Amino acid sequence: MVVNDMDEFAMTDRTVFFVSDQTGVTVETLGHSLLTQFDGVQFKGVTVPFVDSLDKATRVAKEVDLDAQRVGVRPIVFTSFVHEQLREPLLASKGLVLDFFEAFLGPLEVELQSPSSHTLGKAHGIDDIKSYDSRIAATNFAMDADDGHSLHHYERADLILIGVSRTGKTPTCLYLALQYGLFPANYPLTEDDLESGQLPDALRNYRKKLYGLTIAPERLRQIRRERSTVGRYSSKQQVSYELELAEALYKKLGIPFINTTQCSIEEIASRILNETGIERRMGP
Amino acid sequence: MVVNDMDEFAMTDRTVFFVSDQTGVTVETLGHSLLTQFDGVQFKGVTVPFVDSLDKATRVAKEVDLDAQRVGVRPIVFTSFVHEQLREPLLASKGLVLDFFEAFLGPLEVELQSPSSHTLGKAHGIDDIKSYDSRIAATNFAMDADDGHSLHHYERADLILIGVSRTGKTPTCLYLALQYGLFPANYPLTEDDLESGQLPDALRNYRKKLYGLTIAPERLRQIRRERSTVGRYSSKQQVSYELELAEALYKKLGIPFINTTQCSIEEIASRILNETGIERRMGP
Repeated sequence: MVVNDMDEFAMTDRTVFFVSDQTGVTVETLGHSLLTQFDGVQFKGVTVPFVDSLDKATRVAKEVDLDAQRVGVRPIVFTSFVHEQLREPLLASKGLVLDFFEAFLGPLEVELQSPSSHTLGKAHGIDDIKSYDSRIAATNFAMDADDGHSLHHYERADLILIGVSRTGKTPTCLYLALQYGLFPANYPLTEDDLESGQLPDALRNYRKKLYGLTIAPERLRQIRRERSTVGRYSSKQQVSYELELAEALYKKLGIPFINTTQCSIEEIASRILNETGIERRMGP
Repeated sequence: MVVNDMDEFAMTDRTVFFVSDQTGVTVETLGHSLLTQFDGVQFKGVTVPFVDSLDKATRVAKEVDLDAQRVGVRPIVFTSFVHEQLREPLLASKGLVLDFFEAFLGPLEVELQSPSSHTLGKAHGIDDIKSYDSRIAATNFAMDADDGHSLHHYERADLILIGVSRTGKTPTCLYLALQYGLFPANYPLTEDDLESGQLPDALRNYRKKLYGLTIAPERLRQIRRERSTVGRYSSKQQVSYELELAEALYKKLGIPFINTTQCSIEEIASRILNETGIERRMGP
């Protein structure tokens, strides 16, 4: 049983259980998404994956009851059980049980005139070997084509992110590979590149694959200081200079770009796909 | 509007729209998880993120109606609108609308005695700069500590995955960093390491952080052949030899390990966290 320290525990806190007979990734994602809508409450998350027997489910239900007693308010229990009967012990517990499958499988079964298969592990199991393999291939590609290495990879890349150092290129590429099976490359624009006012040779043939990243100077300084506090790398003047030249280059060449200052990795990735129309190779 | 080619389109197919005023990541996760339960139906997914005005919502509703007319069955529409009124045009469309927030925010509001904030972009926005920063730091760490590079990183690592080449170490590490903000390292066991029957020097002080990966020989051969078809790297004899020695080493030293043959990346990650009790540094 793993405790997520989402927040410090205080008197007014609520414990939230994420319980699944699979990996728990879906139920965590959905639960977190709902909880972010409640500002005033502090949540403490507990993820319990692979609850695949009545025995295990009964043990979790006991944990829920113990927590209710200890904290004095009832825990929230997000579940996504493929096997409905595993939900029973939790429904009999002191927690508020919100089941993602229960809410939607019924209407889908009616609409599709087909019973659901209730098969374990489909969502994040290796059900589809081909999709696993393309994801591994995509991740390898993103690693190999990171940070301007292996320029010969550009031919095969789905897109090439460009930007000055620390604008979020690498994590965005890795996310695009892991989440969507895409083949992303990235190239860090150096001061020499920027001062030339031209695309570096390596990128010239791939202009249609380019997407630029930029960011607010103050935020970039903050990120760069985490990496290195010495030299002009994170100086106000240097950061502003690089960003101005990069944005000027994007505009001059008509390269689409996004300001990542207020964006999470998911949002950068999602906006780029939405604007370029690049097709996902696989779903989450 | 981005089309996910989840499957080839056929006469009996259903179009599935994933519509959100945010990134669409949550609604895609929910929808995919549910649709994997229906084996007999071919789905074609269309993700429409950032639908943040009535005008945009109306346009999506028209797309839905057009699709219904073209395909001859009504599309399934998964939505997660923070702003309820944006749901209206879709509810009036010909699609079967399943709204994630509608189903669950109500019960949560009652239980928490607090209205939800209906704030856009919280789930995958950069709401929490600190959490964004730890994720970037984790991703940088995973990149730096990949494949036995930078052995001095082991001191700081949350865990160190070990295994022979191509057992899934790198994608699992990247996933643990991106999804949970963890600091994972990995070390590839070479033939020399394996034949010594001992841990390599670099790992000796970190035995408690080690977690082994193994895989069925036939599956490993298949994966290695993708990478290189020359030499003994993917030969039956070599692959079996390496895997036997690696598993013997894990058992001899009491290192926990997982067989990844039937596992997705999510499942490998989730099982390791569940068994080691390593705490997630952030939620999905």
